[in-house]
Amino acid sequence: MGSCVTPAISGPLLELERQFLDQSTVIERWFREQWHEHVPPFYGSVDLRNAGFKLTPVDMNLFPGGFNNLDSVFLPLCVQAAQAAVERMCACARRLLLIPESHTRNQFYLKNIERLTDILHLTGLEVRLGSLLPEITAPTSLMLPNGGSLMLEPLVREGNRLGLVGFDPCAILLNNDLSGGVPAILQGLNGQCLIPPLHAGWHVRRKSRHAAVYERVVHVFSEEIGIDPWCISPAFRVCGGINFHERAGEECLSDQVDALLVGIRRKYRELGIEDEPFVVVKADAGTYGMGVMMVKDASEIVGLNRRQRNRMAVVKEGLPVGEVILQEGVRTFETIDSAVAEPVVYMMNHYVVGGFYRVHTARGSDENLNAPGMEFRPLAFDTPGTIPDSQQEPDAMPNRLYTYGVVARLALLAASIEIEEMSPAPGDADSDCGCGGVSPESRLRPEGDQP
Amino acid sequence: MGSCVTPAISGPLLELERQFLDQSTVIERWFREQWHEHVPPFYGSVDLRNAGFKLTPVDMNLFPGGFNNLDSVFLPLCVQAAQAAVERMCACARRLLLIPESHTRNQFYLKNIERLTDILHLTGLEVRLGSLLPEITAPTSLMLPNGGSLMLEPLVREGNRLGLVGFDPCAILLNNDLSGGVPAILQGLNGQCLIPPLHAGWHVRRKSRHAAVYERVVHVFSEEIGIDPWCISPAFRVCGGINFHERAGEECLSDQVDALLVGIRRKYRELGIEDEPFVVVKADAGTYGMGVMMVKDASEIVGLNRRQRNRMAVVKEGLPVGEVILQEGVRTFETIDSAVAEPVVYMMNHYVVGGFYRVHTARGSDENLNAPGMEFRPLAFDTPGTIPDSQQEPDAMPNRLYTYGVVARLALLAASIEIEEMSPAPGDADSDCGCGGVSPESRLRPEGDQP
Repeated sequence: MGSCVTPAISGPLLELERQFLDQSTVIERWFREQWHEHVPPFYGSVDLRNAGFKLTPVDMNLFPGGFNNLDSVFLPLCVQAAQAAVERMCACARRLLLIPESHTRNQFYLKNIERLTDILHLTGLEVRLGSLLPEITAPTSLMLPNGGSLMLEPLVREGNRLGLVGFDPCAILLNNDLSGGVPAILQGLNGQCLIPPLHAGWHVRRKSRHAAVYERVVHVFSEEIGIDPWCISPAFRVCGGINFHERAGEECLSDQVDALLVGIRRKYRELGIEDEPFVVVKADAGTYGMGVMMVKDASEIVGLNRRQRNRMAVVKEGLPVGEVILQEGVRTFETIDSAVAEPVVYMMNHYVVGGFYRVHTARGSDENLNAPGMEFRPLAFDTPGTIPDSQQEPDAMPNRLYTYGVVARLALLAASIEIEEMSPAPGDADSDCGCGGVSPESRLRPEGDQP
Repeated sequence: MGSCVTPAISGPLLELERQFLDQSTVIERWFREQWHEHVPPFYGSVDLRNAGFKLTPVDMNLFPGGFNNLDSVFLPLCVQAAQAAVERMCACARRLLLIPESHTRNQFYLKNIERLTDILHLTGLEVRLGSLLPEITAPTSLMLPNGGSLMLEPLVREGNRLGLVGFDPCAILLNNDLSGGVPAILQGLNGQCLIPPLHAGWHVRRKSRHAAVYERVVHVFSEEIGIDPWCISPAFRVCGGINFHERAGEECLSDQVDALLVGIRRKYRELGIEDEPFVVVKADAGTYGMGVMMVKDASEIVGLNRRQRNRMAVVKEGLPVGEVILQEGVRTFETIDSAVAEPVVYMMNHYVVGGFYRVHTARGSDENLNAPGMEFRPLAFDTPGTIPDSQQEPDAMPNRLYTYGVVARLALLAASIEIEEMSPAPGDADSDCGCGGVSPESRLRPEGDQP
């Protein structure tokens, strides 16, 4: 079994990159077989941390924002992949209803929705935006900084179908992660393709469940290509019954942090790594980088002051944190213009379609970069990450990005399996489009019937 | 119904480009529905002629060479599209046997094979090259100008399977157009996925059959988006019983040329086009730009001198020409560095994956550019042609290329239907891979079975 820790002379992560590079044919074939058995999500993004000696996903987002941060060179790949996704999920779809997050004032997010709409448009879909906001009672135009605009419309429910006034879509694409639960208007839909399925929302999804599936995926993958699964998989533990305000569950947190640190220290010693181990404490259902802290000692988690406890106690939409995942901390050794950077990889269907670096000038390599003040550097990712180049060194840009794409796809595959296993009914993940095939008038006439 | 002829002031083809641009959503949806009903070829390339007032395919190649002429920016799109094609045709394939043309000394063609091998490799296939050449009796390494090399190996037939020594492939990809017929070693294969199917070879394929299907496809498409089918479809006629050496069939040629010219003149007058009409005479089964001539009057085709007759009488591999297609000539108004240029669009699966211009400094706008002395300008195609940009003018580069991609895909769709209709047995076009699904050891274990 190979090691991902490299002699200092050859630079960080070189060994893992070399192994991925040497075995790209095996890796791609393995993924093809996996996607033959598991339905890939429509889209997803994965935040990665690259410590040099270890490269792991830290967040797998099934409702990705940030498409606006992708360089326009990635657009053709996005469109082609989205075409494949639409074909697979809903070949006959003509109209798609996109339901965005409800924070309408975030210009960055609106640009994401604009870009996503453009991509879907180019696949041949009529796309309109339906808002879950109660104050959107009539079509409302939102101005964008680039001079464009987005039209948000109120949702209309008729029986088991959801649409807009005068717009009955075949497919509904959620870009809303359902952190606050499934609104009544989205419940009990029938005959429309709902993507992703409701049970992929953060109201039921748990980071720890994803982490457990990811561990299984990595185990199989690592055996296939002969690497130490440790190189791409962070250790984790879970604590339930947490109430940060009332300091409930602190003992579990402290014990598990301790256990993780002991394990990390042992492995670091084994491999001669001199970094100080740390653990990331995160809300098990949290998103948006909220409810996250890094600890280097178990005592830190019991000695939280009121401000720290408040910060950990609630996540997006004010939801209280009752379950926590504790994850082996992975530093990011990547820097851009001397600011700490972590790669974010975007996928549609099962294809890597681009990425960028999240950069934070005020944070350290062992801190959460998904925080106010973060910036995005689309240009640093100058190739799509799908094309390794065996003529170049293993750590040359195309090869490093290929490595990132492989790990991101492992997280995506874990998400597929996670959604499958969460599915309330078999086949639910692949819900029916209900648009009844191709319209007769657009069929090509048989050979004899020429004009 | 719209016209593709534009007022002089707005420049050539603007109207068609504007219509394609305005209706790109409808167009993409229409294609998606068509590809839901028809199996796209694994790959293909289409030569186009753009007269400004008319844009038509002139050649649809199901065994495309020239992948080496695509700029490397297209590589990610090629790989992604090839992945989709492999998935669809042969998801479980691990090994692919590529059978190239037999002209081993053509360095350009060898570079095409190298590029194609790279693309297939990156989709996760083990790719090896099997040669139909009788003199390849042992693995033979061919040097490439860039310092690389290709290994040609002798084919090995065992029962109903084809492979190489120690290499039993799931899939066989032909890059050999079978002009000379189907070699015995390729006949009667079973349990391997043969791509394209044998009946797509030039031993049975006819340009005129393709032209007839293309006409039907254009008819339906034009109705869907409301354009005059004339704008994208060349008139054609066929003559059989031709023997150029013996001057047999000249009367048919002369009559049909005349009839075509009368029709073209009428339409030109109607639309105020001042170009001189011409007709292209081509071997109905020919490739490689051989057996092609342009005539502006019926008398030209009966008064051929011996040299001209010799040039028309045989095509690739010395095959005699017995059937001829006569096609409405379409000038190319595109020039690059003042040399006449025609666009060539490449597709894999049903995706446009790139293209380039074929340029000939010594030929006129009404001449065949597929001739010795031609050059390729990969860089002129600086976007993939899949992303129209409604913010730009209809004749801006991305939009012109989008238009080219639409017409190329119409030709590809016609080829799909042509292959379907030629199929000796239903389902033959989608032949079985015979690799029996995913190997058990690479399956992911169920949830309970964790380490």
